[in-house]
Amino acid sequence: MTFIDRHTRGVFIIAATPFTETGAVDETSIDSLTDFYLGCGVTGMTILGIMGEANKLTAEEARGVASRILRRVDGRIPVIVGVSSPGLDNLKSLSGFAMDQGAAGVMVAPTPGPAVEDRVRGYFHQVCEALGPDVPVCLQDFPQTTGVPISAATILTLTRECPQIVMLKHEDCPGLAKVSAVRNGSATAETPRISILCGNGGLYLPQELARGADGAMTGFAYPEMLVEVVRTHQAGDADRAEDIFDAYLPILRYEQQSGYGLAVRKAVLKHRGAIACSRTRAPGPKLTATDEAELMRLIARTEANVKELSHGS
Amino acid sequence: MTFIDRHTRGVFIIAATPFTETGAVDETSIDSLTDFYLGCGVTGMTILGIMGEANKLTAEEARGVASRILRRVDGRIPVIVGVSSPGLDNLKSLSGFAMDQGAAGVMVAPTPGPAVEDRVRGYFHQVCEALGPDVPVCLQDFPQTTGVPISAATILTLTRECPQIVMLKHEDCPGLAKVSAVRNGSATAETPRISILCGNGGLYLPQELARGADGAMTGFAYPEMLVEVVRTHQAGDADRAEDIFDAYLPILRYEQQSGYGLAVRKAVLKHRGAIACSRTRAPGPKLTATDEAELMRLIARTEANVKELSHGS
Amino acid sequence: MTFIDRHTRGVFIIAATPFTETGAVDETSIDSLTDFYLGCGVTGMTILGIMGEANKLTAEEARGVASRILRRVDGRIPVIVGVSSPGLDNLKSLSGFAMDQGAAGVMVAPTPGPAVEDRVRGYFHQVCEALGPDVPVCLQDFPQTTGVPISAATILTLTRECPQIVMLKHEDCPGLAKVSAVRNGSATAETPRISILCGNGGLYLPQELARGADGAMTGFAYPEMLVEVVRTHQAGDADRAEDIFDAYLPILRYEQQSGYGLAVRKAVLKHRGAIACSRTRAPGPKLTATDEAELMRLIARTEANVKELSHGS
Amino acid sequence: MTFIDRHTRGVFIIAATPFTETGAVDETSIDSLTDFYLGCGVTGMTILGIMGEANKLTAEEARGVASRILRRVDGRIPVIVGVSSPGLDNLKSLSGFAMDQGAAGVMVAPTPGPAVEDRVRGYFHQVCEALGPDVPVCLQDFPQTTGVPISAATILTLTRECPQIVMLKHEDCPGLAKVSAVRNGSATAETPRISILCGNGGLYLPQELARGADGAMTGFAYPEMLVEVVRTHQAGDADRAEDIFDAYLPILRYEQQSGYGLAVRKAVLKHRGAIACSRTRAPGPKLTATDEAELMRLIARTEANVKELSHGS
Repeated sequence: MTFIDRHTRGVFIIAATPFTETGAVDETSIDSLTDFYLGCGVTGMTILGIMGEANKLTAEEARGVASRILRRVDGRIPVIVGVSSPGLDNLKSLSGFAMDQGAAGVMVAPTPGPAVEDRVRGYFHQVCEALGPDVPVCLQDFPQTTGVPISAATILTLTRECPQIVMLKHEDCPGLAKVSAVRNGSATAETPRISILCGNGGLYLPQELARGADGAMTGFAYPEMLVEVVRTHQAGDADRAEDIFDAYLPILRYEQQSGYGLAVRKAVLKHRGAIACSRTRAPGPKLTATDEAELMRLIARTEANVKELSHGS
Repeated sequence: MTFIDRHTRGVFIIAATPFTETGAVDETSIDSLTDFYLGCGVTGMTILGIMGEANKLTAEEARGVASRILRRVDGRIPVIVGVSSPGLDNLKSLSGFAMDQGAAGVMVAPTPGPAVEDRVRGYFHQVCEALGPDVPVCLQDFPQTTGVPISAATILTLTRECPQIVMLKHEDCPGLAKVSAVRNGSATAETPRISILCGNGGLYLPQELARGADGAMTGFAYPEMLVEVVRTHQAGDADRAEDIFDAYLPILRYEQQSGYGLAVRKAVLKHRGAIACSRTRAPGPKLTATDEAELMRLIARTEANVKELSHGS
Repeated sequence: MTFIDRHTRGVFIIAATPFTETGAVDETSIDSLTDFYLGCGVTGMTILGIMGEANKLTAEEARGVASRILRRVDGRIPVIVGVSSPGLDNLKSLSGFAMDQGAAGVMVAPTPGPAVEDRVRGYFHQVCEALGPDVPVCLQDFPQTTGVPISAATILTLTRECPQIVMLKHEDCPGLAKVSAVRNGSATAETPRISILCGNGGLYLPQELARGADGAMTGFAYPEMLVEVVRTHQAGDADRAEDIFDAYLPILRYEQQSGYGLAVRKAVLKHRGAIACSRTRAPGPKLTATDEAELMRLIARTEANVKELSHGS
Repeated sequence: MTFIDRHTRGVFIIAATPFTETGAVDETSIDSLTDFYLGCGVTGMTILGIMGEANKLTAEEARGVASRILRRVDGRIPVIVGVSSPGLDNLKSLSGFAMDQGAAGVMVAPTPGPAVEDRVRGYFHQVCEALGPDVPVCLQDFPQTTGVPISAATILTLTRECPQIVMLKHEDCPGLAKVSAVRNGSATAETPRISILCGNGGLYLPQELARGADGAMTGFAYPEMLVEVVRTHQAGDADRAEDIFDAYLPILRYEQQSGYGLAVRKAVLKHRGAIACSRTRAPGPKLTATDEAELMRLIARTEANVKELSHGS
């Protein structure tokens, strides 16, 4: 069994949850999507996140999705399971299930409530106690959605106080200064190292890597780009990494539209053959004909860019 | 079977969900709490709301709580079930279950998202279509919690467009002008009547009744006051109704503290013998020793007020 | 010259700014209102706050209002001037003016921005440096309006780090636990004492005093009640203090409606002869005929309560 | 005198306000910056906006900045002045001043407050009445900053009801569907045309133009790109327009970081010789050495892209 740890790096793709036209969980597409991600060379997966529409699944469906993906992955890469929940009991129960099925760790965001940092700190202590010390935790810092900002200082305090918090999913925006602050403030005499994987759709990935991030954790529908950028950057060729990134940036910034972006992402995944149907569960975003045409234009331009990039290299 | 309708009035108490010291749903206390509410003379109950910690229950627990309360009530009063959920599928499924078990209607708040009123309007159309026309709906307008304000104009539009939306749970604050606007704008040539029950812990109940509200829907731990105030007011004695209200106002305004108030409410319910344990599910508010002493002082003062009130009458 | 300090206690009334029917600053009413407050026995005044509609005044008007009040007060009681501003230059300039005119200190709220506490801490350091060490500062903690929560820990840190921050205007809600935390955490070996005056319209004043608050800073239109409650409580008769408070609670809780409450407050001040016109500057709240009648009813009930109270005592 | 109208199109650059190292308004740089913008071929300017740090200027400074820019422009292009203010009196007074000095119109955002659309609609009616019918208004729709969302339906209602509202500054995000809805819903039998200029740093400019936007209103520090993209697109070559856009996208998306982005923008303007000093007024963002190096790298890559683009054309 592989667990995430303080040195985990690479690309953890955030997985969509595919549905059929009638809105049922599409198990065949779960398999094909998992294969697609594996084929793109991702280092790991993160499932049942916001992008996975986890909050629109029944508890049984959520467990079913987790089981099926974990079985399909079959230990080849680590899988983190999103377990955030308004109540600790449900959080603990889903975590236990996920770890039993072979998850590499769990991801937890702070609960809504007064945005005071000592409340946040207290909450993560409660979470760690509930989970027990053997479950590695990725702290999800996504204030745009949770409404709960967390300073770098609080993240570092939690890194010291809760040994099982080994990874930060960084998703504050603007957030580049925070990457630097957490990177520079960890792996010191007082504070252990913490792995930093960055979200925000990848919008600032080259800058984040230059500031010491260990990779990406996001759901961009061209995961091979994330993989290639991280690999190239970590191999020392920051310029080439950024050239690759820039070739995809037009569609990446289009996909990175809060809420609406999920429909775009699923449409691209369907276009690429990874899933059979791009439907999101209601109430969810849908593409109009205008949106579809706009997206297809961006896809065509992206593919032309990528072709040129490989010829130019 | 009784359904809520456009003329429903009185006091629908919002029920707490009792837990044992170990955090399990306390079925015995569910029964005693239901009996307590019935003994207070409430007109109806609303269950699985925010105050019922519905979002910390598993789906099975939620259904179990609803079933047990509905069985205990046994048709003596109408029961509304809160079914708000991020996804329509889960909302529809819980509604179907509740109506099958004998609920009188369901309560639905708008989903989080951009606070644009045409989105809200579209959402309630989706909800009504998903539920089918036979399920009466109480629209919950609670922007402090949902982050989604709804104008009186939009409420009236939905009253016209969705015949099954028969009741407004009014919980905007400040919101007295909205009570007037909805009351005066409904029961007109264009717009059907809509029942208005008011929340906000009852903090403005005398004013709301004077402006035409049909009663209260809130969870104040002295439900007999709400019952007596509404009955006395509807019998035409607004002054006496307000005297009764004022006697309880010190503890009512104390209980009406967002978040923290639930711990107060459960402590009072335990003090009054309605439930065995005042625990909330984690992460939830807890009373410190200082809080406890402060509350006990308010309880003693309230009881003295009430004694004086009955002597003075 | 009296300055506010770490031991300041009593009632600092937050002053309204009176306007004429045409919307001009009403200088005559400024004088009569100041006299009214002095006649109520307030310990101090706080001017140019949110309730003073400071953000709708021109810079010249704001200075004119401050000068006129300070001249009228003529050193009899300390006056705090609200100087919060998006920019430090304007804040510093108004502070300098106010102190020159005889203010006892200035009140500063955190600027809007990411609600991270190290940003808040940094901001107050900037403020103190800009003001120079001789200007006493009252830190305004009002997250419902500023959108910036501050934990008790951060307030105590600032109390240690910035010697000129001598007073907290406490206005978080729910906020009783914070009163206790700041009270218990200050006047220790590490942390100096900080004066705590409480806002929120006075809604929890008896509880706040019991937890160690030094008094009130709010604009309730019956300031004599605040004065009497604080004096009676500090004289050791908490029960009598709370009886007085409860007699006014119905109208106090009515006045304490965010936004709308300012129109209520000015209408009461006009009713009591303290100002000539209850107009607020546009865009601002106005009372409808229904609102007026509702308020007059509450005023009549309050006066009856107060009469009964003095007979009963 | 040129006024903005329903058919205004092109690029209105949002002007920065330059300060000296000591924080004073830098009048020489105001002139050089104005010349720089004119040299880039912009169609118009928008001054005293959020990006112009208008809320950190004194009233006198704001008027001085407006006068100086208007004098420097000398009627060559239309200038819109941002006049948003918490109070109508100040808004009206600044508008009067600006129009007297030769402004082409004013820009107004909704005031903070309950995010209910009938309040917003009422507010714009108040604004138009206060300004009088001869002042053309650009409605600024920027909910990320104002906290007040406005639906396309409300914008179209205001377009019908207030003839002087001739332009929308579109800055909702995600907001492409809103561009389409306003474009398709205006210039109909019932609703007059409204000019749509788009903000958001230009992040979706090619898509916005394709959906019928009339141009851009944003402050990107390479205004010549905005000008060229809009001109090329309006000339019918959407592909070439998007190629130009994409060459600048890496730095554009970097500049488009809320709050922090202003420091980036001013640093680029200084780098390009348009202003003498990149300082923002406190409390404001500053670049660290890491930020500076990161930015310089992006500038170098952008210039290389642009060179390649012109060679390739």
